[in-house]
Amino acid sequence: MAGPLRLFVEHPLGEAQPVPLTREQAHYLFGVMRQGVGAEVRLFNSRDGEWRARVTEAGKRGGLLTVEDRTAPLRVPPDLWLLFAPIKKARTDFIVEKAVEMGAARIMPVQTDFTNSERIRQDRLQAHAVEAAEQCGGTFVPEVCELQKLSTLLAGWPADRQLMFCDEAEADGEAGSSALGGVLAGGPWAILIGPEGGFSEAERARLRDMAQSHVVQLGPRILRADTAAVAALTLWQLRLGDWA
Amino acid sequence: MAGPLRLFVEHPLGEAQPVPLTREQAHYLFGVMRQGVGAEVRLFNSRDGEWRARVTEAGKRGGLLTVEDRTAPLRVPPDLWLLFAPIKKARTDFIVEKAVEMGAARIMPVQTDFTNSERIRQDRLQAHAVEAAEQCGGTFVPEVCELQKLSTLLAGWPADRQLMFCDEAEADGEAGSSALGGVLAGGPWAILIGPEGGFSEAERARLRDMAQSHVVQLGPRILRADTAAVAALTLWQLRLGDWA
Repeated sequence: MAGPLRLFVEHPLGEAQPVPLTREQAHYLFGVMRQGVGAEVRLFNSRDGEWRARVTEAGKRGGLLTVEDRTAPLRVPPDLWLLFAPIKKARTDFIVEKAVEMGAARIMPVQTDFTNSERIRQDRLQAHAVEAAEQCGGTFVPEVCELQKLSTLLAGWPADRQLMFCDEAEADGEAGSSALGGVLAGGPWAILIGPEGGFSEAERARLRDMAQSHVVQLGPRILRADTAAVAALTLWQLRLGDWA
Repeated sequence: MAGPLRLFVEHPLGEAQPVPLTREQAHYLFGVMRQGVGAEVRLFNSRDGEWRARVTEAGKRGGLLTVEDRTAPLRVPPDLWLLFAPIKKARTDFIVEKAVEMGAARIMPVQTDFTNSERIRQDRLQAHAVEAAEQCGGTFVPEVCELQKLSTLLAGWPADRQLMFCDEAEADGEAGSSALGGVLAGGPWAILIGPEGGFSEAERARLRDMAQSHVVQLGPRILRADTAAVAALTLWQLRLGDWA
């Protein structure tokens, strides 16, 4: 986790481009990290890769960076959504962080029949995703969506998007060792992690009826939702993603 | 995570066996969880599987359970050690919890050349492993060892134990998608997760020299140590472990 300071910015990045800092970024860079004029920072914006920049103005409420050269190309994750039912705050934060590290393109909190938490702070989770990408050398920040009902989402599910459905209660799911073995290619996918209380019978029936769904069993032990998220992302990246 | 209350005990388990509760267990069961005489609890001890028991005496400082029948067989994880360099407290706790869920048989904190933390609370981490097994339906609690120097551990490394060595800095590691593909069988294994600051050159050279070591790359993104632990355990369980 060492290495140069990294910041996500909305601004376009290119040679000699001036990039203004937000108040929060200025506070972080100059207040918390004690940097000043001349300091090197790496910038990314989910579009232009990673660029080296240098502080040219430093103030209490803002500052300016000037972009120098590109230090890494843009790396976009595979077209993979992660759907999960929000759980306790720390574990929800954790799932968002892990989804960024493991390379999900979109993070979608869903409300299931047995979801306890009925609200999320989308802005806080999105900021958490930005921070994860900054810390882990990413050049892309996945979008964190607002909480949606799983039933609504499934009702309008794209015909071409496959769904890996991880359910502890499904004894007849494909075992991890062979899961997705018959699937030929990547293309659009989503992973759905069950809530701590499991899915309802209605949800389970709905999911089984979908032509796009693939029931997968994540080993013989019961996994917490946050563990299941990382394990499922690993399995998918190994079989169909960019771990090749 | 719902379901009956579960407790790890040291006591042998068998029909009609009386099992005394420790003060902490009595506090948890009667104080926190508000259970009383007649309540059902599931017990496991890493040896006899899971047994149904009922509270027959309940007190402030102790209590007694009486064992009824066996509800699940003992499930011992594969002979897999997880070696990792302790990091910040919350993330070290997390790694221990995830190692239990993912099925490591032994958890070994190691001090590397670049490990920041030089102390761990072994008793606290062991209690954390017990709690993880209780909550996740396990019947076995892996031993959490005291902190050891990686160099000492490697100097006496068992000839028959393979070592999966996960290092972000090793660009020439086997990619996850093909990693361990040539390895025929399980047998004794260990996974070594690098510290946040990476391995030293001396450590890297030492690890590369070992006939038992297999360098594996966990995808194209940089993973935190705790993410790497879950991803590596998933990869190993899929390829060589009990996810078959």
